[in-house]
Amino acid sequence: MGTSVNDVSPGEADVHFSGIDRNAVLQALAAVLPPTCLLSELEDLRPWECDGLAAMRQLPMLVALPETEAQVVEILKICQRMGVPVVARGAGTSLSGGAMPHAFGVLLAMAKFRKIVRVDPVARVAVVQPGVRNKAISEAAAPYGLYYAPDPSSQIACTIGGNVAENAGGVHCLKYGLTVHNVLRVRGVTMAGDVVEFGSHALDSPGYDLLALLTGSEGMLAVTTEVSVRLLPTPQLARCVLAAFSDVVVAGEAVAEIIAAGIIPAGLEMMDQAATAAVEDFVHAGYPLDAAAILLVECDGTPEEVAEEVARVSEVLQRAGAGEIRISRDEAERLRFWAGRKAAFPAAGRISPDYYCMDGTIPRKRLGEMLNAIAEMERRYALRCINVFHAGDGNLHPLILFDAAAPGEQARAEAFGAEILERSVALGGSITGEHGVGVEKIDQMCVQFGENELRMFHRVKAAFDPAGLLNPGKAIPTLNRCAEGGRQHVQGGNLPYPELERF
Amino acid sequence: MGTSVNDVSPGEADVHFSGIDRNAVLQALAAVLPPTCLLSELEDLRPWECDGLAAMRQLPMLVALPETEAQVVEILKICQRMGVPVVARGAGTSLSGGAMPHAFGVLLAMAKFRKIVRVDPVARVAVVQPGVRNKAISEAAAPYGLYYAPDPSSQIACTIGGNVAENAGGVHCLKYGLTVHNVLRVRGVTMAGDVVEFGSHALDSPGYDLLALLTGSEGMLAVTTEVSVRLLPTPQLARCVLAAFSDVVVAGEAVAEIIAAGIIPAGLEMMDQAATAAVEDFVHAGYPLDAAAILLVECDGTPEEVAEEVARVSEVLQRAGAGEIRISRDEAERLRFWAGRKAAFPAAGRISPDYYCMDGTIPRKRLGEMLNAIAEMERRYALRCINVFHAGDGNLHPLILFDAAAPGEQARAEAFGAEILERSVALGGSITGEHGVGVEKIDQMCVQFGENELRMFHRVKAAFDPAGLLNPGKAIPTLNRCAEGGRQHVQGGNLPYPELERF
Repeated sequence: MGTSVNDVSPGEADVHFSGIDRNAVLQALAAVLPPTCLLSELEDLRPWECDGLAAMRQLPMLVALPETEAQVVEILKICQRMGVPVVARGAGTSLSGGAMPHAFGVLLAMAKFRKIVRVDPVARVAVVQPGVRNKAISEAAAPYGLYYAPDPSSQIACTIGGNVAENAGGVHCLKYGLTVHNVLRVRGVTMAGDVVEFGSHALDSPGYDLLALLTGSEGMLAVTTEVSVRLLPTPQLARCVLAAFSDVVVAGEAVAEIIAAGIIPAGLEMMDQAATAAVEDFVHAGYPLDAAAILLVECDGTPEEVAEEVARVSEVLQRAGAGEIRISRDEAERLRFWAGRKAAFPAAGRISPDYYCMDGTIPRKRLGEMLNAIAEMERRYALRCINVFHAGDGNLHPLILFDAAAPGEQARAEAFGAEILERSVALGGSITGEHGVGVEKIDQMCVQFGENELRMFHRVKAAFDPAGLLNPGKAIPTLNRCAEGGRQHVQGGNLPYPELERF
Repeated sequence: MGTSVNDVSPGEADVHFSGIDRNAVLQALAAVLPPTCLLSELEDLRPWECDGLAAMRQLPMLVALPETEAQVVEILKICQRMGVPVVARGAGTSLSGGAMPHAFGVLLAMAKFRKIVRVDPVARVAVVQPGVRNKAISEAAAPYGLYYAPDPSSQIACTIGGNVAENAGGVHCLKYGLTVHNVLRVRGVTMAGDVVEFGSHALDSPGYDLLALLTGSEGMLAVTTEVSVRLLPTPQLARCVLAAFSDVVVAGEAVAEIIAAGIIPAGLEMMDQAATAAVEDFVHAGYPLDAAAILLVECDGTPEEVAEEVARVSEVLQRAGAGEIRISRDEAERLRFWAGRKAAFPAAGRISPDYYCMDGTIPRKRLGEMLNAIAEMERRYALRCINVFHAGDGNLHPLILFDAAAPGEQARAEAFGAEILERSVALGGSITGEHGVGVEKIDQMCVQFGENELRMFHRVKAAFDPAGLLNPGKAIPTLNRCAEGGRQHVQGGNLPYPELERF
C-alpha cells in the first residue's frame, strides 16, 4: 500500500498483554532454542515489522525461528504458560496484515521449514514443510509431469503454510479450486503444544472436517508444521483467448455466459480500460486500448480439448457482443497476453504514489453493475480506480489510486474501499475472495456476518485456543467491536442498499 | 444388513438421560407444535425405530415433525432446557446408523421440509429445504439443462439434509466432488436454538469454514433448515468403457494408471468376479463372467471430449493389461453396463440371507493388495465377500455375506468387517469413504485417530453443543471408550501391521 506508515496502537485485545515480562519470555525461549533461532535486538526485529500490507507496521516483542516441530511445541507451550501472543509467519506476503506482528508477542517465523519431504508421483501427493514456496512445489513435481494448481500472484515468494492459513487462490482456482480443495492433510501444533493431524491422504476423512476449518483460519487455530498437497498432471497445452468489449456491462455478461454454457476455463480474467492503459505503458502486451474492458480466457488440456474449448469460448464471446477476438498462436503470445494482467499491481505502483487493493467477491452476473457502481464512487471520492478481476470467480481486485502525502487522500481511499466491500456484501458477495481479513478488513466482518455467526466463530476459536493467544486481533472481530463501530450486518437484511434485491 | 435385530442397550452416553420425564417433554412440545407434528403412541413411533442400518433398532421417546424453522428453534430450545437428546433425520437411508433414534430423545424428522425454494439458472444455484430428495434437485434443474452432481446410490430416496450431514458421495464424485464441494451455504439451528448461516453464495466466505465443518458432521453440530447447492450443466453425452482383467492386482494397477495419466473420468468403478457373478444372475448386464475383475469407466462431456477421453482410456487400459474392452454404443447399452453395478447390493441380498457392507478407503495404488488381503480374510473367517469399489476414489464396498441365523456367523462377519477397516487405515486410508461413522464404526474411530485428534473433535463439538444433546453417542467416541476398547491408533504409528510402510 505504498509509503505511508501507521504505527499500530494497541487495541482492545492488547490491554491484557501489557504486563508481559519480555526478559522472562526471552530467557524461557533461550532455554529451548539455539541462539541462531531467537532474535531480540532492535536491528534484528526491524525487518519483521510488517507483511505485504506495508501500511501497517508493528515491531514484534521477539522473533523465534524454530528448525524442528519439537521446537515449535516448546515455544507454544512456553507462550501458553506465560500468556504470550504468538503470530506465525510464512514469507510475509499477506495483503491483509494476517502476519502483522503483535507488540507483546512472539513472531513465529517458519522460514527454516523449507524441506520437500517427498513427492509421490503415483499417489500424486507432495508432502512438504510449511516454509516451502508455492512455486517450489510445482518445480519439484515437474520431473513427473505434475504440478500444484493454486497459483497466487505471489507464488514465487509465498509459502504453502501461508497459503493454508489464507486459503490462497489465484488465476487457476476457477477450474482447479482454492487451497482448501488441493490440500489433503495438515500436521499442526495447537497453542497448548498438542500435535494434531488434520485430514488424511484418504478420501473424506471421518470425524469433523478440521482440515477445512484450519484452511483459511488465518493462523488463529494452530501452527502448521507439515502439509500434504494434491498434485495434478501438467496440462499438455494452454491457449489464451483475448476479447475486447466496448461496454463493461456487456463484458460482465459475457463472463456469466461462458460459465452458463458449462465451460470452466483454466482462467477467466477481466481488466477495465484504465487497467489496460496502465499496464500497456509498462509491459507492451499489445492490448486493444480502445476497449472499455478486455477478457482473458485460458483453455488448457490435451490439444484436442483445447481446440474444442477455444472454439466454444470464441463462439460464446462473439454471441455475447465481443468486438475483437484474438487467440494466442504460440506460447510466447500466450505469455504476452498474460504479462499485462500479471503486471497490473506494479503498473498501478508506477502511475500512482500509493494504491489500495481490494478483494471483494460478487455473483458473476453482477460484474457490470459493480463496475458502474465503482465508476460512480470514483467521481464521489474524487479518486481513480483501475479494475482487474478474477471474473470467472466473481472476485474483484479494484486498485484505488491515491497519494498518501496529499491531505485527506488516504482517508478517502479507505472509505472508498470500505464502500466497495459493503456493496459487495449487499450484492450477495463477500468482503474477501482470497486475501483474507487480517487486520485490514476486520471491521467489514461486522457487515458480512451477524451476531450468531460471529459468536460461533469465537466458540470455535476457543475450542482450539481458549486463552486467545494465537494471532490475536485478526480476522474475527469481537461483538463489542462490531457494536461500537456501528457497522450494520447486511447479509441477512438489506441495509444500506434497500434498493437491491437480496439473492 | 438383513434380518437380525439387536435392540441397542443404553450406552455410557445414555446414563445421564435416564431421568428424563417423557410426559413433561411431550407437554412442552405439544405447546409449540400442532398435533399432526408430534408422535407419541407406540404404533406411531415404531416406523422410526431404525434407519438404513436395520440391524440396529431403537424406539425414539417421541417424534417431532416440524413444518417451519421457527418450530425447529422452539423444539431445540425446549430440549436444550430440559436436557433431552435430539436426533435429526432425513429419509433415514443412513447405512451407519447416523439417524438411529435415542431411547430418551426426540427424533426430529425433517420430512415436511420438502420445498424447492428457488432454482437460479444464471447463478447455477438451487436453494432447497433439507427434506428435498437428492434426485428431486436434479429434476427441478433439468429444464435449465442443469443438475446436482453428487449421486449416492440412494439418491431417489435420500434427502439433501442427510447428504450434508453425511458428506454423501457417489459414482460421480470422483470428477465432481463430494457433497462438501457442491454445497455453498447451509442455514441451520444450533442446539441452543440460534439460527446460523454457514457459508455463502460467494467464493470463499471469510471467517472459519464452518460450512465444511458442518458438512459430514453427522447431525452432531446443528440442524439444517435450508441448503444452497451448486448446479452443473448436464453433460451432452456420456459413454461407458467396460474392461475385463484376468487378475485383480492388474485391474487395480490399471485404475491407478488412468488417474496417473491425468484422466478424471465421471465414474471409475471396479467389481470382482464374485460380484459380477452375483449381479449377472439378477440383471443380465452381459458382464464377462470369466474375468477376475471388471472396470467400468464413464466418460462425459461434449461429443468431442467424450470421443477423445474414451480413446485415451481404452489405450491406457490396453497397455495396463486389459483383456476384453467394450465401449457402450448407445445410451441403452451404457445403462445396461451400469445396471449391474447399481444392482450389486440387492444382488448380494438375493444370494445371502444377510450381508454387511463396508466402506473403507485406501490409496488407489493399493487396490490389488487390499483385494488379496480380503481374499485371505475370506478363508480365515470362512465367509464369502463380494467386492464393488468406487475404485477411482479408492473407496471400497466389500459386501460380507453371512447368515445371522447360523450360530457365530454374525460375530465373524463383524470381526471380518472390522479387520478390513483396520487394514484400510494401516494402508494409509480411512474407515469410511461416504457412509459415515454413525454407531456402526465408532470403535474403529479409535484406530483411525489418536488422542489429540479425538480431543479436538470433542472441543469442536462442545463449541456447538456444550451439553452434548445433538445425536449423542454417534460418530466420535469418547477417550474412555477408546481406552476401554483397547483399540490401538494405527494412523500415526505402524501397529498392528508393522510390515507395512507408512505412507
